[in-house]
Amino acid sequence: MQANPVLVDVARGASIESRHRGRYVAVDIDGRILAAAGDIDAPVFPRSAIKFLQALPLVESGAADAFALTPPELAIACASHGGEPRHVETVASWLARLGLDPTDLACGAHMPSAAAAAEALLRAGAAPNPLHNNCSGKHAGMLAVCRHLGEPTRGYIDPVHPQQHRVVAVFEAMLGRSLERAPRGIDGCGLPQIGVPLAALALGIARFGAPAKLPLARAAACRRLGAAILANPFMLAGTGRFCTRAIEACGGKALIKTGAEGVYVAAIPERGLGIALKIDDGAARAAEIAMARLLLDHAGLDDAGRAAIAALLAPGLVNAAGRPVGGLAPATGW
Amino acid sequence: MQANPVLVDVARGASIESRHRGRYVAVDIDGRILAAAGDIDAPVFPRSAIKFLQALPLVESGAADAFALTPPELAIACASHGGEPRHVETVASWLARLGLDPTDLACGAHMPSAAAAAEALLRAGAAPNPLHNNCSGKHAGMLAVCRHLGEPTRGYIDPVHPQQHRVVAVFEAMLGRSLERAPRGIDGCGLPQIGVPLAALALGIARFGAPAKLPLARAAACRRLGAAILANPFMLAGTGRFCTRAIEACGGKALIKTGAEGVYVAAIPERGLGIALKIDDGAARAAEIAMARLLLDHAGLDDAGRAAIAALLAPGLVNAAGRPVGGLAPATGW
Repeated sequence: MQANPVLVDVARGASIESRHRGRYVAVDIDGRILAAAGDIDAPVFPRSAIKFLQALPLVESGAADAFALTPPELAIACASHGGEPRHVETVASWLARLGLDPTDLACGAHMPSAAAAAEALLRAGAAPNPLHNNCSGKHAGMLAVCRHLGEPTRGYIDPVHPQQHRVVAVFEAMLGRSLERAPRGIDGCGLPQIGVPLAALALGIARFGAPAKLPLARAAACRRLGAAILANPFMLAGTGRFCTRAIEACGGKALIKTGAEGVYVAAIPERGLGIALKIDDGAARAAEIAMARLLLDHAGLDDAGRAAIAALLAPGLVNAAGRPVGGLAPATGW
Repeated sequence: MQANPVLVDVARGASIESRHRGRYVAVDIDGRILAAAGDIDAPVFPRSAIKFLQALPLVESGAADAFALTPPELAIACASHGGEPRHVETVASWLARLGLDPTDLACGAHMPSAAAAAEALLRAGAAPNPLHNNCSGKHAGMLAVCRHLGEPTRGYIDPVHPQQHRVVAVFEAMLGRSLERAPRGIDGCGLPQIGVPLAALALGIARFGAPAKLPLARAAACRRLGAAILANPFMLAGTGRFCTRAIEACGGKALIKTGAEGVYVAAIPERGLGIALKIDDGAARAAEIAMARLLLDHAGLDDAGRAAIAALLAPGLVNAAGRPVGGLAPATGW
């Protein structure tokens, strides 16, 4: 097996202490490859990096209009949020309008990803509930579709439920390939995961960001979600999080989404580009650096945007006593 | 650059989702290589995996006797502990006997590594102090030496302080090489870090576990620390932690220590072996699997020991809803 290239170095003092290998690809909406490294044909589980596409049925089914969903709600339907109070309140009020409550979310509970929110919860003597799950907005979106179409909400995460058939149909159309024989797994929030070649993931994301050649209703849904995300980057992730900061840094030029195990995607609507990357070892810290590097090359940023992204490109490491000890950066030569 | 081999696979469903590369070596006390993979001559920052050796001056200086240190105290001097109440109380009472308090620890404060201890701290409305730092026992040990020898305690972490000269002299003797030109860095707790070839680290650990050929006082210090660790594996790490569980599983056959950024070492005293490994990308989850695999091969375990280690070899991954979704295991063919 040919090793993928080193994309990110972790330095301590003047030495490289750790290295992260990975692969990336940037494609246009017709699948032409503009940049690539490593094995871009090998499958990847997109994990949460596929949430933009998973949310399309929410708009296309009419559920978003039927429940008068706001842009912040549409954004959180695409989110891996930090479980901060605004995230939790947004999903809670949405569920209430559906006549549902947090026990209807099948995603399970975990501590808020945002450290401050987790600390506040513990200090208050409380325990996390499914609203704090980083995927609760996505699950609320799927429940909204079921309610709107009169389908059972129980079992909405099962591969045989009509909602999941809809999601797979969206993936197949956006990625331009059958997924019948694709590898399957279960995501951290219980939803089906489907393995796709990294280049196919990038293509789907490119088309989401620049949907001009898609059918009209699909294109409108992509644009509506994209606009909601750009207007509400906090809802997509949260305070200090890379997705939120990078979207803000790019000033509307890029839709950016992380996935677990070192996955990242970005759409550059103006250029009709989609970017997908996967760090071999699954490290989020490296995926962020690699995405920042790719945004510098491909997002068409002006000087202010380039400076803002450069601030995310090489974060320093500070030890428990507050002393700088090293940092992360794109690998030498990249 | 030749890539190190894949040592650990992370599976989701029937697919390998992530892979961890790394290198390992097992050597005897004369430096003969019994097993190896990857580039074992490249340097590694041992991080906390060097704590067994960093603690030798505590015994050799006479400080351990002068302050009547107990085996649990000697064990925590070698520890990366979880900041659990017993850890914190042990270091606090030791410092008090030195006439010092937590503000004399230069390691800085961080939340207890043990999730339950961190939660309890937050629920109590408290904040972490330097006693909770996983390295607080090591720092207490260094302060004890300074007190015993009448040296200033201020600045004990500086490379120019006599305590750090002593530590470097121990490293050079145990690893059998000059470290004058070795790469330097600063550890997470503020102490100097010195980069050494992975095989040299393994040699130093082999000699620590099987010190028969060392000078008498050094050998006695190694044996005293080793016995303290084997009798107090909780003090070395904590509840549910790999070091503690693996030492217990090996039933006295192995002294095992983790270091940050994917480092692990083990000494097998009966066999005169030292093992050192480094995961390229720094992942602790992979270092644990690799160490379990190496213990199976090299620790001379009986059936009960092999069964106990096998339970650490391939942990499952369960999602937030409690459903099994995959797991970690040594790479196929290893």
